[in-house]
Amino acid sequence: VQDIRNQLAAAVLRDYHAAALELADTARAVLRSFVCRGHEVELKPDGSLVTNADIEVERRLSAALNARFPEHGVIGEEFPAINPRAEFQWILDPIDGTEDYVRGLPYFGSIIALHYRGQPVVGIIDHPALDLRCSAVFGGGATRNGVEITVAHDTGWQDRSNEVIALATRANFTRYVDDGMTFESLLRANQNVRIFRTCYAHTCAVTGMTDAMVEWEVRPWDIAATRLLVEESGGKYVTLRDIDRPGVGRVHSAVFGRPETVDRLLALLRPLGGCSRE
Amino acid sequence: VQDIRNQLAAAVLRDYHAAALELADTARAVLRSFVCRGHEVELKPDGSLVTNADIEVERRLSAALNARFPEHGVIGEEFPAINPRAEFQWILDPIDGTEDYVRGLPYFGSIIALHYRGQPVVGIIDHPALDLRCSAVFGGGATRNGVEITVAHDTGWQDRSNEVIALATRANFTRYVDDGMTFESLLRANQNVRIFRTCYAHTCAVTGMTDAMVEWEVRPWDIAATRLLVEESGGKYVTLRDIDRPGVGRVHSAVFGRPETVDRLLALLRPLGGCSRE
Repeated sequence: VQDIRNQLAAAVLRDYHAAALELADTARAVLRSFVCRGHEVELKPDGSLVTNADIEVERRLSAALNARFPEHGVIGEEFPAINPRAEFQWILDPIDGTEDYVRGLPYFGSIIALHYRGQPVVGIIDHPALDLRCSAVFGGGATRNGVEITVAHDTGWQDRSNEVIALATRANFTRYVDDGMTFESLLRANQNVRIFRTCYAHTCAVTGMTDAMVEWEVRPWDIAATRLLVEESGGKYVTLRDIDRPGVGRVHSAVFGRPETVDRLLALLRPLGGCSRE
Repeated sequence: VQDIRNQLAAAVLRDYHAAALELADTARAVLRSFVCRGHEVELKPDGSLVTNADIEVERRLSAALNARFPEHGVIGEEFPAINPRAEFQWILDPIDGTEDYVRGLPYFGSIIALHYRGQPVVGIIDHPALDLRCSAVFGGGATRNGVEITVAHDTGWQDRSNEVIALATRANFTRYVDDGMTFESLLRANQNVRIFRTCYAHTCAVTGMTDAMVEWEVRPWDIAATRLLVEESGGKYVTLRDIDRPGVGRVHSAVFGRPETVDRLLALLRPLGGCSRE
């Protein structure tokens, strides 16, 4: 099969990547401005939290994209989609992990991705409070704070006995349908897990800080940068389930990280019926 | 009942607290020196990891204590106990979360506590990579980076629906005996959890970043600073189980954090038989 992303010139991709990095800088600057003035917290109708910082970051990024790439689409967590039929779609999560952000937990992140006809070409996950940014462009590798990432290196002390898996929290497995058994099977088979419940878990799997991550039923903006970051850093990304949930929209489940760990998790997940694309 | 800690003069406690803060500074300086030169990782006989940074921090802190308080006891993770019958016991974990330390996860911490006849009088959990330090002295309150902590404040948006619980990982619940069912009951009743597997989870409960934490079967140095930090910040600390495990030694289980969340978790844990002191 032909990868349609090969149609794009490297210079064009570099330009989009540079634009995405500028957006990440803008998101950091806006969030920094809220450190002193403080933010206001509101409950959304679905019970999740939103702050004026979320809104302000998305508004600023969306306006910047509209000015620079008026023909591109923009999909964000907080505002309606712009140009939903465009070939190029910018997908934004201004603060992934608002719950952690308002509690002072530093694992929240800004997610910025560009997809071309459904395929990721630029991906950034930025953690301002940790001064940690992972960035990738199709065919150009992935970096962590500017340094190239390779997940598959041999440390000499890593083996199955000290493998660390990052998981979504149980709420992800029970919000739309009851996949609680899948969650429990994962926990029984992997006694050494971390649960962060933000895109920090993706960063962990991208950088090798954990061996893999299993993400469950998240919205497009939560996971838009992840596949590219994983693949460009030498990891493996496998979609477990992409499905439309009535009244919600598209939700995505995936496993990703070091290839051998991903394969082991797939062997565990497949008999549970978790692997489908509808 | 009389709290024996009231026998100690405030000036004496202040002096011990100042000494403990100096030890935390020393631990940071030693760890900083390893950032450039790098550390070496070894597997311990029990399968856990240790580095020359762990050893060097404990060696330095232990030597400093021996010089300053030669009559005091010192209990650490890596070296044999000194003066085990002394009334004052310094309890040290040079790097709690060595596994996270070697993976580049910034949640590891140094734990420094002083107990007087079994009761905590000084407690510090320090996270060098996050520039985050919680510190408490008996009767003197608890601080986070020098600012007083109060866990029980009303944010206006926190309620049962968005409560966040930090948990130990499943390995803690199955290492010595099979308490896997307790772990699963906690996860079923609390769909919104975080799992860090280091003393960062304690810091979260102390500071209100999570509403509570359930810690399971950890060694004395893992939890030596926690009760004092929790109580001095207005939280509630309840011992679930203190027990001697043959061939291992004393292990501790506890729930702590916002009083109302701790009470709710206790109501869940008590029927599971988790609450005993032997």
